[in-house]
Amino acid sequence: MIKQLLAAQRHSIVLIGFLAITLPALAADPLPSWKEGANREAILGFVEKVTKEGTADYVPAPERVAVFDNDGTLWSEQPLYFQVVYMLDRIKAMAPDHPEWKTTEPYKSALSGDLNHLVSQGMGGLMELLTVTHTGMTAEDFSSSVADWLDTARHPTTGLPYTAMIFQPMLELIDYLHDNEFKVFIVSGGGIDFIRVFSESVYDIPPERVVGTTLEAEFELRDGIPTIVRKPEISLVDDKVGKPVGIYRHIGRRPIIAGGNSDGDLQMLQYTTIPRDSNDTRPRLGLIVHHTDKEREFAYGRESHIGKLDKAMDEAPDRGWLLIDMKDDWSTMYPTKP
Amino acid sequence: MIKQLLAAQRHSIVLIGFLAITLPALAADPLPSWKEGANREAILGFVEKVTKEGTADYVPAPERVAVFDNDGTLWSEQPLYFQVVYMLDRIKAMAPDHPEWKTTEPYKSALSGDLNHLVSQGMGGLMELLTVTHTGMTAEDFSSSVADWLDTARHPTTGLPYTAMIFQPMLELIDYLHDNEFKVFIVSGGGIDFIRVFSESVYDIPPERVVGTTLEAEFELRDGIPTIVRKPEISLVDDKVGKPVGIYRHIGRRPIIAGGNSDGDLQMLQYTTIPRDSNDTRPRLGLIVHHTDKEREFAYGRESHIGKLDKAMDEAPDRGWLLIDMKDDWSTMYPTKP
Repeated sequence: MIKQLLAAQRHSIVLIGFLAITLPALAADPLPSWKEGANREAILGFVEKVTKEGTADYVPAPERVAVFDNDGTLWSEQPLYFQVVYMLDRIKAMAPDHPEWKTTEPYKSALSGDLNHLVSQGMGGLMELLTVTHTGMTAEDFSSSVADWLDTARHPTTGLPYTAMIFQPMLELIDYLHDNEFKVFIVSGGGIDFIRVFSESVYDIPPERVVGTTLEAEFELRDGIPTIVRKPEISLVDDKVGKPVGIYRHIGRRPIIAGGNSDGDLQMLQYTTIPRDSNDTRPRLGLIVHHTDKEREFAYGRESHIGKLDKAMDEAPDRGWLLIDMKDDWSTMYPTKP
Repeated sequence: MIKQLLAAQRHSIVLIGFLAITLPALAADPLPSWKEGANREAILGFVEKVTKEGTADYVPAPERVAVFDNDGTLWSEQPLYFQVVYMLDRIKAMAPDHPEWKTTEPYKSALSGDLNHLVSQGMGGLMELLTVTHTGMTAEDFSSSVADWLDTARHPTTGLPYTAMIFQPMLELIDYLHDNEFKVFIVSGGGIDFIRVFSESVYDIPPERVVGTTLEAEFELRDGIPTIVRKPEISLVDDKVGKPVGIYRHIGRRPIIAGGNSDGDLQMLQYTTIPRDSNDTRPRLGLIVHHTDKEREFAYGRESHIGKLDKAMDEAPDRGWLLIDMKDDWSTMYPTKP
């Protein structure tokens, strides 16, 4: 009993300390890298609206679900999805054990960096490379391999670690939503177990709040040790129509905020924001990050092979989705300068 | 700015109120329905150990993952899994639109309540009933149907609503873990979308922390309305070897507490508690709820068709899993008496 009272006292000291630290923070601008303008105001206004108790627009905290795409929305995705770079780097690292790869496709093109030729062979070659680099190993071995790569690999044009190419304004938005008791999920076409390696340390999004393209897996006791083995079959392609399915499967509740940057996010934006019927008056926010800044990042959209933004751009005005212009809306791009 | 300062002030009042309310609660017994004894002490000791900062056994809050089976662990499961009762009730409700069911198996046996004959026809018949009652409809229609059933259905021997047949000591354990910043998940062989209908209101476990047997689903804009349709294919059988796979898929982190009641939980208990190697010294807790109380609930185990507890019981002593004797360890069974 004495111990519990002491614990209670310690608890109260921690809470008072917490108060002292958070009060000034609450008064500070939650989105310092977002320039003044309609988009910034719309985001702040939405969050204020749904967190204001006693109003028709109030959304209880457990139902404040926000979902964000990863590639091109939370971090860069050019000139190649970073996970594809990981895949190609793994092929190079594994090549010494496979001398036949030098003369066999799709490995030959992967090793020589001839991506046009690689892609021209169709999806079969890419799937073979993915299978070799992403399956057959244990869950731990895969995670370690990704972590090692993130520690050492550098982006070809910026020279930055890939995890430094995250968008400072989106980090601020995630923090702001967390401060307002939102549950923030990543819903990515990329691999769920690839993103989980860095999502907690980089975005403050824990592994259980990452949804992504998922492989089948098997459990076994291997020499008495509990082991998860990654299988070469896909359980979910978490892209396009797969994103609402991933949300249903992993979250089980419709989000009230969705953010993306490409047509791969179209259905997620629709699922989140279109009212189900005339009684469905809950506020909903959709936003699209438009890559307009070729000086500080990359500029692409309707014609791009990666991150193509066409249909979702067409729908945005009618649906009321915010079109975030990276050049005009963001004062900072990455957390540290190249 | 004035608005933000006012918000900060309101925030501080809320926090002080929170303090005043929680201090007495911290001194109270967190597990009043658990009788004094080795199992109670082991649970309290484990949670105190992993939450004590500055010790070798300390586990940071984000990594405090606890997983519990549902049927037979958080609520009763006799004489039939409650979801099977739902299925049979749905068949009865749908029968007037299908006059041919009166003379066609497996419907005939389902409608007459001849479960022995139903089961004797093999898994095919059961799967057909599951398909008819659980698939083809939208996500919302399925959830509404389950919610309506839970409101009206009563257990055949206790006369209680099924959601009243939850175990008070396990509710206290979930609350105690939440108070200690654990993330508590359900990992069930039952249907993920069935459990999600009541998990938040009944257990305080939100939908995104429910893992269970999962169907494939599809997204479409149906007459312009975003719609998830449940498909008659299984994405995950979240039972036995499927439970660690479900944990990997949905949580992406090994739990430190696992609780079950049958051989269906064996692999989840192994995955949670067996050290990976000699460096893996993190504390782990496994517990098995043993149904020993035929007066207040049901008594079954090694020979039972539902909730068979045999191999896991054999492994428990060597693995150090707590065997919770419901009759001896629990002073209360259900939150309200029948």
